Amino acid sequence: MKALVYHGPGKKAWEEKPRPAIQEETDAIVRIAETTICGTDLHIMKGDVPTVTDGRTLGHEGVGIIEKAGKSVMNFKKGDRVLISCITSCGKCEPCKKGMYSHCENGGWMLGNTIDGTQAEFVRIPYADTSLYHAPEKVSDDALCMLSDIFPTGFECGVLNGRIKPGDVVAIVGSGPIGLASLLTSKFYSPSEIVMIDVDDGRLEAAKELGATRTINSSDGNAADRVMELTDGKGVDVAIEAVGIPATFDICQSIIAVGGHIANIGVFGQSVDLHMENLWSRNITLTTRLVDTVTTSMLLKSVEAGTLHPERLVTHHFPLSDIQKAYDTFSRAKEEKALKVVLENK
Amino acid sequence: MKALVYHGPGKKAWEEKPRPAIQEETDAIVRIAETTICGTDLHIMKGDVPTVTDGRTLGHEGVGIIEKAGKSVMNFKKGDRVLISCITSCGKCEPCKKGMYSHCENGGWMLGNTIDGTQAEFVRIPYADTSLYHAPEKVSDDALCMLSDIFPTGFECGVLNGRIKPGDVVAIVGSGPIGLASLLTSKFYSPSEIVMIDVDDGRLEAAKELGATRTINSSDGNAADRVMELTDGKGVDVAIEAVGIPATFDICQSIIAVGGHIANIGVFGQSVDLHMENLWSRNITLTTRLVDTVTTSMLLKSVEAGTLHPERLVTHHFPLSDIQKAYDTFSRAKEEKALKVVLENK
Amino acid sequence: MKALVYHGPGKKAWEEKPRPAIQEETDAIVRIAETTICGTDLHIMKGDVPTVTDGRTLGHEGVGIIEKAGKSVMNFKKGDRVLISCITSCGKCEPCKKGMYSHCENGGWMLGNTIDGTQAEFVRIPYADTSLYHAPEKVSDDALCMLSDIFPTGFECGVLNGRIKPGDVVAIVGSGPIGLASLLTSKFYSPSEIVMIDVDDGRLEAAKELGATRTINSSDGNAADRVMELTDGKGVDVAIEAVGIPATFDICQSIIAVGGHIANIGVFGQSVDLHMENLWSRNITLTTRLVDTVTTSMLLKSVEAGTLHPERLVTHHFPLSDIQKAYDTFSRAKEEKALKVVLENK
Amino acid sequence: MKALVYHGPGKKAWEEKPRPAIQEETDAIVRIAETTICGTDLHIMKGDVPTVTDGRTLGHEGVGIIEKAGKSVMNFKKGDRVLISCITSCGKCEPCKKGMYSHCENGGWMLGNTIDGTQAEFVRIPYADTSLYHAPEKVSDDALCMLSDIFPTGFECGVLNGRIKPGDVVAIVGSGPIGLASLLTSKFYSPSEIVMIDVDDGRLEAAKELGATRTINSSDGNAADRVMELTDGKGVDVAIEAVGIPATFDICQSIIAVGGHIANIGVFGQSVDLHMENLWSRNITLTTRLVDTVTTSMLLKSVEAGTLHPERLVTHHFPLSDIQKAYDTFSRAKEEKALKVVLENK
Repeated sequence: MKALVYHGPGKKAWEEKPRPAIQEETDAIVRIAETTICGTDLHIMKGDVPTVTDGRTLGHEGVGIIEKAGKSVMNFKKGDRVLISCITSCGKCEPCKKGMYSHCENGGWMLGNTIDGTQAEFVRIPYADTSLYHAPEKVSDDALCMLSDIFPTGFECGVLNGRIKPGDVVAIVGSGPIGLASLLTSKFYSPSEIVMIDVDDGRLEAAKELGATRTINSSDGNAADRVMELTDGKGVDVAIEAVGIPATFDICQSIIAVGGHIANIGVFGQSVDLHMENLWSRNITLTTRLVDTVTTSMLLKSVEAGTLHPERLVTHHFPLSDIQKAYDTFSRAKEEKALKVVLENK
Repeated sequence: MKALVYHGPGKKAWEEKPRPAIQEETDAIVRIAETTICGTDLHIMKGDVPTVTDGRTLGHEGVGIIEKAGKSVMNFKKGDRVLISCITSCGKCEPCKKGMYSHCENGGWMLGNTIDGTQAEFVRIPYADTSLYHAPEKVSDDALCMLSDIFPTGFECGVLNGRIKPGDVVAIVGSGPIGLASLLTSKFYSPSEIVMIDVDDGRLEAAKELGATRTINSSDGNAADRVMELTDGKGVDVAIEAVGIPATFDICQSIIAVGGHIANIGVFGQSVDLHMENLWSRNITLTTRLVDTVTTSMLLKSVEAGTLHPERLVTHHFPLSDIQKAYDTFSRAKEEKALKVVLENK
Repeated sequence: MKALVYHGPGKKAWEEKPRPAIQEETDAIVRIAETTICGTDLHIMKGDVPTVTDGRTLGHEGVGIIEKAGKSVMNFKKGDRVLISCITSCGKCEPCKKGMYSHCENGGWMLGNTIDGTQAEFVRIPYADTSLYHAPEKVSDDALCMLSDIFPTGFECGVLNGRIKPGDVVAIVGSGPIGLASLLTSKFYSPSEIVMIDVDDGRLEAAKELGATRTINSSDGNAADRVMELTDGKGVDVAIEAVGIPATFDICQSIIAVGGHIANIGVFGQSVDLHMENLWSRNITLTTRLVDTVTTSMLLKSVEAGTLHPERLVTHHFPLSDIQKAYDTFSRAKEEKALKVVLENK
Repeated sequence: MKALVYHGPGKKAWEEKPRPAIQEETDAIVRIAETTICGTDLHIMKGDVPTVTDGRTLGHEGVGIIEKAGKSVMNFKKGDRVLISCITSCGKCEPCKKGMYSHCENGGWMLGNTIDGTQAEFVRIPYADTSLYHAPEKVSDDALCMLSDIFPTGFECGVLNGRIKPGDVVAIVGSGPIGLASLLTSKFYSPSEIVMIDVDDGRLEAAKELGATRTINSSDGNAADRVMELTDGKGVDVAIEAVGIPATFDICQSIIAVGGHIANIGVFGQSVDLHMENLWSRNITLTTRLVDTVTTSMLLKSVEAGTLHPERLVTHHFPLSDIQKAYDTFSRAKEEKALKVVLENK
C-alpha cells in the first residue's frame, strides 16, 4: 500500500509500504476513506516531536472501513464504517477508567507518533473497541474526519474546561482550526458574546461567518485593551488559549474577569510568566488538558442531530495520492485561506 | 476606647480613640471579646499594603458582643455573641449573589484595611446581617476567632478549590497557620496522605500533631524530589500553596500529578514562571481565590459537632492591652513557636 | 389607584384601592408598566390557595418604573425601569445565602399571595435590592414580563435540574407557557431532540414553531409507548414534568432512560404512585423545586444578547383596565389559542 | 471442585462440580480465598430472582488468587491476589464508558445470577481486566471481601448520591450491613450528625459503636417525628433508604429538609406513594442506583491508608465447606447478632 512516511526533519515521502496486519487480537485494520493534516504534523516535520522517528507513517485523524478485526474485538466487524480517534485508549488502566484517555498507560497519542498513522491507505488501530466509533450513516466523511481530533480538542480542552454557561462572555485567542472548533462548540452553551482574536484577518472573517459576535486583530498588541473596553473593564468569563505562545497566554491572563476561567489548548514549547501578583486574589481557574476524546459520542450525536456542522472547517479536498501538495497548501494556510485540508482515498 | 492604630510603616500605637458609632442603619457596633493577629497585619506594618493609611485601627478577625445594631439590621440585636467575618459582604451586588463575597462591590476586605478594624475595644461592622454570624453557645472564643479568616481561607482557597476527595494524596506547601488550617479541614474529606512541607521543623512538628501523615523540610531544595519518590513518580492529587513565593509555587507545579489540582492560597508580590511546556498536556487545574467566607456557617456547624477543633492553632494568649507584646511574639513566630496569638478583652 | 382584588373563590373586582406606601426602608414602590396572568392566579380564583385572603391584590409578575425607594435601598432609585421577581428574597437568611430564595425565611412567594401583588397600577416590593432587577434598555416590556416567573421556572426547575447536556434527548410533558419556557431554555444546551407532549394540538403546534423536534398528542394514552419507540426502547435522558397530575408524572417515569433525570415543575395537589420496583436499579434522579429566580440575571443577559426570545410566548395584549376580559381569555386558553396574556398600563 | 449450587426455591447443595475453565480470552479463573453471603442470596433462595436458575453456583462477592488468565488479559497474571467486583464490566460499551458499569451491555450483575458465582472453590470472571482489582498486600481478606459489593453499594448509592457535605445532618434508615457501610463511608465527608434508624436494637448498638451520633428504634412508628424534633422541625440534609419497603421510604420523605437529598439503596418489590403534594415545592432530589463499583479503587486506597475499616462488619467466620451452616446463621441475623458472615477457603 501507499503511505506518507517521515524520514527526519523536512523529509517525507509518499511511498510503498507493507499493509499493516493484526498484531494483537484487540487490533483492527481500517481502510482509510478520508484523512487530514494537523498542525502537529507540521511540527513533526520541523523535527519538534522527538518520539516520531524515521520510517513512521504520519497522521492521527481519519475515517474509514474496517478491513479486518482481531478476534477479541467485540464492537466492530469487517465492513463497518468507523471514525478513528486520535487518542488510543485501552479502556482498562486507571486513567482510562477515570475518562482520562489521553494518559492511557497503554495508549494515548500513538497514531503517527509512536506507531504508524492514518495518512496511508490502511492503518492498524490498537484497542479498536475503545479507540474507534461507529459512523452514523448520514454523517459525511468530511464531518467525521473533523471529529478525530480538532473538535474533541476544541470542545474538551476549551469549552468544557472553560465551563461556558449561557450568557457568558467568551474570548478565544487563536482563530485556526482548533480555535474555530472551540467557537462552534461554544455555541452549544449559548454564550452572549464570543470574541475571536487572531493576527490573520482571513481567519477572523471565517470566525465571523461561523458565529463570532466580535473579532479583534491582535497584530497591534492592543487586543487585551480592546477586550477590556468591550467588557466595561470587567474582562471575560472564559478565555480560551488556542495558540500556545507567551504573547497569546498573556492576552488571556490580562482579560480574565474575577471568577473567570482560562482554558488552555495551545501546545507550549516554553514557560510563561504567570502574573500571580494580580491573579492570586481574583478567584480564577486555569486549566490544561490533552484531549481525551471522551466526548466523541456526544459530538457524533450532535452532528447527526444537525446541531453541529464540523465540515464547515474543511476548505480543501485532495486525492490521498496528492498528499504532498496538500501539505504544501496547509503549510501556506494564510495565503491559501486554508483551514482543514482533507485527503480522499476513493 | 483603646485601639491599635497604624501610623505608617513600622509605627503603631495602643491609643485612645473615639468609640465607633452607627453610620448606616445596616451597621452594628461590636464590643470585642477576642481578636487575633494575621500575617497580613505584619505585611501592613512593613508598608506593603498601600490601602492602609495613617490612623487606621488594625485587625480583621474577632469575636464579640453586639453593643448596638442599626435599625435595618434583622438578624442581630444588642447582647448577641457574634463571630466577625474578615470579609464584609453587602449581600446585594452581583458578586455577593454569586457567593463571591470577596469581590463584593460595596465591601470585601475592609476591616483594618479601608475602615477601622477589630484590634480595639469596639468595632463598627457594615452590612452586619451578612457580615456577622451567631456564635453557638458552646463554642469557645478561641475557636471562633480562628473562623474569622484563617479557617475559611485554608478551607475555601485550599481544600475546596483543590477538590480533595477521599483517598487523595495531598501536599500542603507552607505549615503556618493558614497551611495548618488547610491541613485540619483537608481531613473533612479523608485523603489517604497529607504531606506538609515547610522550612521550620517546629511547624512541621505541629503539623504532625495535627494529623499530617508525612512532613518534609524543604530547606535543602529537594522537597519536590522527595514527594515524587513518595508517590512512585506520580505526584500528588492536590497541591496547596500556602506561602506565596516563586520557590514554593515551583514545588507545587513540580509535584502535581496528571489530572491534579494546584490550589493557591499564598499572597503573591511577584509573578512566577509557569512551566506550560510541561503542564499543557497534563490535565491540571490551577486556582486562585481571595477567601469568600461562604463556608463560615458550615465551619461553625462542624466546630459545634466536634468534627473540627480550630482552637488547636492558638498557642499564645495576651490581654488586649498587651497587644504590642503580642505583635512582638507573633513576629518572632519561629523562636516563640507561635501559631496564632489571641488577645482577650475581658 | 386601581387594582384587581380577590374577594373569595370566583370573585374578583377591578376596584379603587389606596396606593401602596413604603413600610420598611428596604421597600420600593413600583409603577406597573406591564403585568400578566399566571396559571396560579386561576388556581387562586378557584379557592385552591388558602394563603390568599379576601381583599388581596392579585399578581406576581410584572415590569415597571420605580416610583419611590426606601432609604436603605442601594441598587435602585426613582425612575429606574425594573423587572419584578415573583420571589421576594431578603438576601440575609440561610436559604437566601444558599441561593434558595424560594424558601427565604422573610420572603418567598409573597406578591399576590400574602401581600398585595402586581395586577394593579402600583405595587410595594419588599427587599427591593434583592427582589428587583434593572431592565436593560433595549429589552421590551413583553420580554421582561416573561422573566418574572415562567422563564426562571421553566429554566431552573426543568432545564437546570434536568441537567440537560448537548446531544441529549429531552421530553417535556406539558406544552403550556411553563413547558414552552422549558423548551426555549432547553435550547441553551443544544439537546439533539426535544419531544413535546400535550393533549392540545394547538399548543403542540406552538411548540413546533418554537423549536420542538417532535410533538406527541397524549390524549390516546399511548404517549409513553411512542417515546419508547422513538428512542429504540432506551427512553429519554431528561423528562420534564410541566403539568402536575399523576397521569403526566406517570409518562415521565415510564420514559426515563437508565441514568436519566426527571425534573418536576408541576404543582401537585395529590400524591403519585412511584414505581420504585422498576426505578430502584435504574440510576435515575428525580428533582422538585420551587423557582428560586437565581438565574434572572443570566436570563436577562441572554435576552439582551438575542439568544432568548421570551416575548414569543405572548399571544394577547390588553389594557390593564381590561384585566377582567384578559382573565376570561386566559381561562379559555385552548379555544383562544392563548399562551401568555399581558396587561399594559400605558 | 465443590460449590454451593441452587436447585430451586429453598433448595441448595454443597456439591461437586467441574472446575470452571477459560471461555473467552478476556476471562480469568480465580481460586477463592474468602467469600461471603449477601441479603440478595437469601432473596434468591426464596425464589424472588427469576434470572437465577437450577444448577447455578451462588455468590457475587469474594477475594482470591488468579489461577489462570486468558490471553487478552493484560492487568492480571497467575498468582495475583485479587478482589472480585460484584459487577462485571466489559469496559467497552456506552454505559461502561460513562462509568455506569451496573448497566454494562455485556456484563452487570452476572456472578451468582446469570453465570456461576463465588461461593465455590473456583470462579470464572469474564472481562477480568475491568472486573477485578489488585489486592494491596497489607489489606486483609475480610476487609477486601466487604469491598466486592456492600461498601461500593453503601458508598455510591447512599453517600455519593446523597452528596453528603461536611456539617450535614444525615439519617440512614436501615442498619443492616448496607446501611452500616453507608454509615462508615458517610464519615469520609464529616457530617455533623449521623442518625441510624432500625427496628433491631442489636443493630442500632452496632451502629453506635461504628460512629452513629444517634440511633432511633422505629418499631413504634414514630421515627419520623423524633427526627423532626431532633432537627428543630427542619429535617435532615440527606436521608439514605437502606431497606426497600414503603414504610422506610416513607420515613425518608417525611424527614427530608428543604433542599435535601433522598438517596435510595433499597431493593424494592413494589411501588411507593410519593407525596408530591408536599415535595413539589421543597427543592428535593431523589436518586436510585444499582451499584456501579466505580469507586472500588478509591475504597481500596482508603482501606490501605487506614481511613476505612470495612472488616468491622464481619461478625462470623466459617470454613467454606460449612457454608450451609453459615447461611443458617446469616438468615437468623437478629438472634445471631450477625452482620457479615465470611467463608474461608484455606
